[in-house]
Amino acid sequence: MAALEIYDTTLRDGAQAEDVTFSADDKVRVAQKLDELGVHFIEGGWPGANPKDIEFFRMIKTIPLKHATVIAFGSTRKASNSVHKDPNLQALLAAETKTITLFGKTWSLHVTDALGISLAKNLELIGDSVAYLRGKGRRVFYDAEHFFDGYKTNPEYALDTIRKAVEAGAERVILCDTNGGTMPWEIRKICEVVQRECRVPLGIHAHNDCEMAVANSLVAIETGIVQVQGTINGIGERCGNANLCSIIPNLELKMKRPALSDRLSHLKEVSGFVTEIANLMPNKHQPYVGDSAFAHKGGVHIHAVLKNAATYEHIDPAKVGNRQRMLVSDYAGRSGLLEKIEAYGIKLSKNHAKVQELVDTLKERESQGYQFEGAEGSFELLMRKAMGSHKPSFQLLGFRVIVEKKQDNGAPLSEATVMVKVGEVVEHTAAVGAGPVNALDHALRKSLEKFYPQLREVKLLDYKVRVLAANKGTESKVRVLIESGDHKDKWGTVGVSENIMEATWQALADSIEYKLLSKD
Amino acid sequence: MAALEIYDTTLRDGAQAEDVTFSADDKVRVAQKLDELGVHFIEGGWPGANPKDIEFFRMIKTIPLKHATVIAFGSTRKASNSVHKDPNLQALLAAETKTITLFGKTWSLHVTDALGISLAKNLELIGDSVAYLRGKGRRVFYDAEHFFDGYKTNPEYALDTIRKAVEAGAERVILCDTNGGTMPWEIRKICEVVQRECRVPLGIHAHNDCEMAVANSLVAIETGIVQVQGTINGIGERCGNANLCSIIPNLELKMKRPALSDRLSHLKEVSGFVTEIANLMPNKHQPYVGDSAFAHKGGVHIHAVLKNAATYEHIDPAKVGNRQRMLVSDYAGRSGLLEKIEAYGIKLSKNHAKVQELVDTLKERESQGYQFEGAEGSFELLMRKAMGSHKPSFQLLGFRVIVEKKQDNGAPLSEATVMVKVGEVVEHTAAVGAGPVNALDHALRKSLEKFYPQLREVKLLDYKVRVLAANKGTESKVRVLIESGDHKDKWGTVGVSENIMEATWQALADSIEYKLLSKD
Repeated sequence: MAALEIYDTTLRDGAQAEDVTFSADDKVRVAQKLDELGVHFIEGGWPGANPKDIEFFRMIKTIPLKHATVIAFGSTRKASNSVHKDPNLQALLAAETKTITLFGKTWSLHVTDALGISLAKNLELIGDSVAYLRGKGRRVFYDAEHFFDGYKTNPEYALDTIRKAVEAGAERVILCDTNGGTMPWEIRKICEVVQRECRVPLGIHAHNDCEMAVANSLVAIETGIVQVQGTINGIGERCGNANLCSIIPNLELKMKRPALSDRLSHLKEVSGFVTEIANLMPNKHQPYVGDSAFAHKGGVHIHAVLKNAATYEHIDPAKVGNRQRMLVSDYAGRSGLLEKIEAYGIKLSKNHAKVQELVDTLKERESQGYQFEGAEGSFELLMRKAMGSHKPSFQLLGFRVIVEKKQDNGAPLSEATVMVKVGEVVEHTAAVGAGPVNALDHALRKSLEKFYPQLREVKLLDYKVRVLAANKGTESKVRVLIESGDHKDKWGTVGVSENIMEATWQALADSIEYKLLSKD
Repeated sequence: MAALEIYDTTLRDGAQAEDVTFSADDKVRVAQKLDELGVHFIEGGWPGANPKDIEFFRMIKTIPLKHATVIAFGSTRKASNSVHKDPNLQALLAAETKTITLFGKTWSLHVTDALGISLAKNLELIGDSVAYLRGKGRRVFYDAEHFFDGYKTNPEYALDTIRKAVEAGAERVILCDTNGGTMPWEIRKICEVVQRECRVPLGIHAHNDCEMAVANSLVAIETGIVQVQGTINGIGERCGNANLCSIIPNLELKMKRPALSDRLSHLKEVSGFVTEIANLMPNKHQPYVGDSAFAHKGGVHIHAVLKNAATYEHIDPAKVGNRQRMLVSDYAGRSGLLEKIEAYGIKLSKNHAKVQELVDTLKERESQGYQFEGAEGSFELLMRKAMGSHKPSFQLLGFRVIVEKKQDNGAPLSEATVMVKVGEVVEHTAAVGAGPVNALDHALRKSLEKFYPQLREVKLLDYKVRVLAANKGTESKVRVLIESGDHKDKWGTVGVSENIMEATWQALADSIEYKLLSKD
């Protein structure tokens, strides 16, 4: 079987997603990460449409890549321009990539309604544009936009457009399901026809508007297509592009088709990196790479997985850099809870009087909006408190936080005071911060560091706020999740209140208590 | 072709999702909504495993449903119990549903490793349990857990388990891809075999661990399977269940197979309702029902869609209760921005000097973390300010917010003071609130309502906080989005700052300015 080509368009089609904006710098960082992962092609942007992309192509030229070829993307010439005067083609050349992906129209609706030209004229644009770039020494991949919609409307014309591109020198023809409306059985049938009609290797570019992008991509590969285009985490316009984070492991682990050079175990890391750079909420439930992908909550499942992971895990999570997790919830039942408690080194029999108390406490907290998935630090403290084995390291006598803004355009000043008691000593401190939360954090640490110098090594890694009841305006309850870390550990803590400062306080106090606990 | 059966398990398998907890009340509300949508079966819970589910079945009995049959779910008897003494079977009977879905083991690995019994004994459990429930007058659907994994390991035994269930009186056999690891071509082949071997109608229950749950469900239906099980928004353990919000429109609009009784246009509403009740973040990019599913950002796309929506929309969004949206972004280009500006009733030529200024302002704001998708109110104000056509309704002289906590367990007091100038009058007010954000909201309104009584009718409908840079702890920038409404309109506003009170202030002030603007 022909070797597969993984073609990433996170930086071009992915950047079309609502809420996603990459700077040129961001793009360079993502490109380096994709190269390390071992993808074959990185579509970096559309230099003819975005000044930022011109900057990216300028920057990426100076950076050596190990595996990947960087590609500039653009459209066939405008009907009113000659190739020499077409700004889009000129921008593609100026990007100085060895390979260019050029898209053109397949679907008669687009030719007549969107471009407003004749079908014959469109063939001319395709041929001219491909030939011009070939003449300038570039390799050309031809993206047949709306190929499947076009083929369903007018199969002969759709085939003519790609024949034209191939005659003019295109080395790949990529069949695009641009609107994402095609079903897998249609993809299969059409891909089979096109392979008989087209003498260059084919690619598939699928969108997820019917939740079919991954299936459509794999079905196309099953018929013999060699190049698959997609994005990390499936980000992209509307419902997104085909998700490479699902396609790649499906290819390697399910279809036994090598796709990357032995870098599959870095997949979760790359997925998280792109989420971070794109500043998106991670999708916990994402196949293979989501935090919940191998998380077990049902009592029956937890029980079985502890005996043999294959009972409820379709692959070994380590293969994609993921891991197994056991969740705390009322669904997990008593035995699940006991297993969880034991993981913290506390031994309890199933009928111990404290177990019911602990189950009740957990349920009550959960009904208030607490969530201990991701806040294992608070969970452990709660257990220790319920077991009566926790000695608090400090007592809060009070805090006050003040935010003061003096005029319309000035930045407000945030100040916090904290009064705590450690043993018999009362400590009263004040601090400022970037905001009220930060000021409270500073004041609390300042008050405790003289008693517990090890707190100096604690860093707050992440601070998350979630408004719980979405319909109560500024009176809504909020949940604060804090992730803290030192040189060897990371721990999460949680707070819930209608008052964001109180919720923050709870999570901060737990973070510090947890750190001091682990040093006992 | 046989009529399809839509079987919803949002309340049972969906409730296994990480972060999802439904109360019995929640479950009743969701069941009513599902009934209105027109699904045929609602799997309400597992009464043998969850006390909350017993409560749900007690409550739902008193509520008349129009279309749906409510189903209780449970497992075959334990090997050590007789059917009469098996608590799970007894709880199923006590739920008093006419139909019960019973699951049993198909895969030898589960029989020997998880249950620790012989293959023959497992057949006995299946036969006994189905026959017992049938004897009590219940209709029984049989869920063959891990059917595909079981069939691939030992096809004869897998078929034996379902033959046993059918002999004992099961009316449906549902083939479950419990671990979600099966590819569509395997599903097709195995479903074809089973249809030849089994004389009752079949169902499919797919999980999304390979991002294949929707494709696998539809491929199964293509082979002649009549019942499809899934959840609203695809929520469920690990990577979720097959997503009914994609399956149903794919069936009706792509495969022309009637699934609901003419209620497809309520799909987005039901999707949003479940998201809200489950207290999850909506997935904007969800196919068909997500807010971005028909949102256009690329300049080329916006341009074409305005001419003919079919160019980049695979269906008419109204069919599923969704709508088209045009997004503001640097990608949309000048012409997209001009169209957006015109939508606000401002006429500008493409080369007007202010246009570049506006584009620059927008870009700068976006790079700071502002986002105007969902904050159209702030966007309009920004445009009016850039055009020089905005007269502010008030001037802030200053505010102060104080949060004070007196002891470890007490609720903190939140107080805000605000000083504003309206015309030549200075107003200085103070107010308390549930938290600092709420107190600031109260004080600001109090100070302005005497000048602008129409502010009394403004309600804050939603308040969202998003931490932007995920790695700066309590110093991170936050973005606040506020949704406000009066008796006829709704508008969104945004604020960004490292200080949550400042970000809130910006969004609150914009909300009020916007209201006063629309009254001009």
